[in-house]
Amino acid sequence: MLCEIVAVGTELLLGQIVDTNSAWIGEQLALSGIDCHRHTAVGDNRERMMAAFCEALDRADAVIVTGGLGPTQDDITREVVAELMGVTMERDQELVDRIEARFAGRGRKMPANNLRQADVPVGATTMSELPGTAPGLICPVGDKVLYTVPGVPWEMKEMLEGSILPDLRRRAGAVSVIGSRTLRTWGQSESGLAEMLADEIDRLDLEGGSTLAFLASGMEGLKVRITAKAATSVEVEAILDDEEARVRGVIGPIVFGMDGANMESVVLDELVAQGLTLATAESLTGGLIGSRLTDVPGSSRAFRGSVVAYAGDVKRQLLGVPEGPVVSEEAVSAMATGVCRVLGADVSVAVTGVAGPGPQDGQEPGTVWMATCVDGEVEAVRVLFPFDRVRTRQFTVISVLNLLRLRLEARRGG
Amino acid sequence: MLCEIVAVGTELLLGQIVDTNSAWIGEQLALSGIDCHRHTAVGDNRERMMAAFCEALDRADAVIVTGGLGPTQDDITREVVAELMGVTMERDQELVDRIEARFAGRGRKMPANNLRQADVPVGATTMSELPGTAPGLICPVGDKVLYTVPGVPWEMKEMLEGSILPDLRRRAGAVSVIGSRTLRTWGQSESGLAEMLADEIDRLDLEGGSTLAFLASGMEGLKVRITAKAATSVEVEAILDDEEARVRGVIGPIVFGMDGANMESVVLDELVAQGLTLATAESLTGGLIGSRLTDVPGSSRAFRGSVVAYAGDVKRQLLGVPEGPVVSEEAVSAMATGVCRVLGADVSVAVTGVAGPGPQDGQEPGTVWMATCVDGEVEAVRVLFPFDRVRTRQFTVISVLNLLRLRLEARRGG
Repeated sequence: MLCEIVAVGTELLLGQIVDTNSAWIGEQLALSGIDCHRHTAVGDNRERMMAAFCEALDRADAVIVTGGLGPTQDDITREVVAELMGVTMERDQELVDRIEARFAGRGRKMPANNLRQADVPVGATTMSELPGTAPGLICPVGDKVLYTVPGVPWEMKEMLEGSILPDLRRRAGAVSVIGSRTLRTWGQSESGLAEMLADEIDRLDLEGGSTLAFLASGMEGLKVRITAKAATSVEVEAILDDEEARVRGVIGPIVFGMDGANMESVVLDELVAQGLTLATAESLTGGLIGSRLTDVPGSSRAFRGSVVAYAGDVKRQLLGVPEGPVVSEEAVSAMATGVCRVLGADVSVAVTGVAGPGPQDGQEPGTVWMATCVDGEVEAVRVLFPFDRVRTRQFTVISVLNLLRLRLEARRGG
Repeated sequence: MLCEIVAVGTELLLGQIVDTNSAWIGEQLALSGIDCHRHTAVGDNRERMMAAFCEALDRADAVIVTGGLGPTQDDITREVVAELMGVTMERDQELVDRIEARFAGRGRKMPANNLRQADVPVGATTMSELPGTAPGLICPVGDKVLYTVPGVPWEMKEMLEGSILPDLRRRAGAVSVIGSRTLRTWGQSESGLAEMLADEIDRLDLEGGSTLAFLASGMEGLKVRITAKAATSVEVEAILDDEEARVRGVIGPIVFGMDGANMESVVLDELVAQGLTLATAESLTGGLIGSRLTDVPGSSRAFRGSVVAYAGDVKRQLLGVPEGPVVSEEAVSAMATGVCRVLGADVSVAVTGVAGPGPQDGQEPGTVWMATCVDGEVEAVRVLFPFDRVRTRQFTVISVLNLLRLRLEARRGG
């Protein structure tokens, strides 16, 4: 089963929005064992849409079209698909009622424009999901199929999961299953990881079937993704278990989490498990550490708060940082103990440094002092990041939380 | 002049990374007056790459290929392009020297693998930029041209700006110029803006040439983008001036910034202009307001710091919030005055609320109290956001900063 994706929208070609839909759909297809060899983006233009749809249908068994289903005159996906099917459009009264009900649910009357969204090519089936006002359509073309879904990501996702993937799987019959597992790491570069795992990559290349891939994801860590393909999901899980054990055998110490678990959630879980509360003292990150921690629902179980001491005298007055340079071991250590005292927390992390672009107090950009305070004991380290302002701040966040994670793990073990 | 973009990489099809390159290149082409009708993504596969390159060259005058220029065996863009040109590859000794120098600059020896990156199809020209180790190539195909650049965004961008756009403009001769201007707004929905500007949109539709587009961008505001096309950049600027004046005549009061100026930078500039310092007191945002403010280089001229009071007793002890509910007018007002006192700031913003997913203290998710303190006077408002946790936090940030902006503007005017 081969499926292509065509994204419709002049705004995509002009770069006014980035096409995240095709990447997401591509991932879902891969996870369902359906091959996808091409993504295409075209503008809201009848001839060029027709050409893209026909070419994709020539190459593949199924085509997923996103976008061009809105209520305005430039939304012409419905018309183009009807022409491609060689049929006319008919207004679907049941669909009119459902769209009217969507508006009524928000206390509004349906504008006349939206009636266009109830026009369906004869022979097409309407998907049962209707999260917005644009219906998704299943359009048979000979023995192939073309699906149209809205470009709004959450509407598209509901229809892909609810209607398209089940329909594709049914058409494909028994397909092979692809599964993947992601180990999140911190402490090695991408090329460093590749070197450490070179033998394992060679072994998988020879065997075929499974693959290892690396993906640097900023504050989300450096991901090692294991992908396996087999006849059943039970077999896939067995392969993944085996491969995960092999990979952990090589890089285990720098793996901090799996799949959706980022550094913040891993640290918060460990704090909750040990019954500890956390405070942060931030300078160059300006609140980013606290912001990331509180992105995690339920973070209030362990996180008490932060003091963002951006100005030098705030560091001194509120956190008790001594006179002298504010990017120093003395300063960051005082911040770590000070914030535990001020916010009444058991443990803390503290950071002070030069985010850039320029130097500060004679220190070059990228210079960062980080400290952790656990059971009243402070440990501090100095790092020099070779990055711009944004990445220096991001790498500071994950690095200092990783230092805390390692200390908390040692504390639990000891 | 018609140009297409082809992105190469199986990781794009699998959704492991999102293709931001094509969007960025699309925008640059539009701004240079070069039409682009299609973006394509294909995997690292010889036949499918060849098909995509040939089809794109059939339709367009020029094709920009990103990716597949790395040093490993699966990077085959060079080979496929040579085959398409009907030529062999030759190792370019000058390029070998330049790549070796890149490694030497980082204190490393060039691995043998990287020699492949110095193989160039006969007849192709090497671009002068070499930010990484993958050279960009200009490959003539009959009277058309194919450019290959690496998939690493910053390497690609340097080559696009330095070599490809100048080459395309030269080939195109006198092209029409496209320009755009973005007004950033806060305080109206997308459909509300569209209704307010309906007459202007109709007028532009009738005239042709210029367009208005809306783009909701979360914390970056709701953008109104004016695009104009004319023979010269002077004419384009005149049309944009005229159109901007018309649009501001209708929605002026909710425009907070232009183009790259986000809410944080606008507020910081206004604080610096009035000689005021700022502190923030954050609960549900957890540090996100401070983090966004300190994303702006030079924010230390006005920003003193934050107290992130996530736990209830931190709000009371450190900021002087009275006993009683912490999501209330009394609490947020005390936070706003308290943080001015604690951090020694002239003005402040404060937020407390329920980010969700669940309710808290009998308040439903999305309930947010926001306050601003200017010249010792506090103003507080309550909002109920119909969003998830992430968007509730983001909309809180831009909303409270917008409240401060309006008070600062009134202060300057009065």
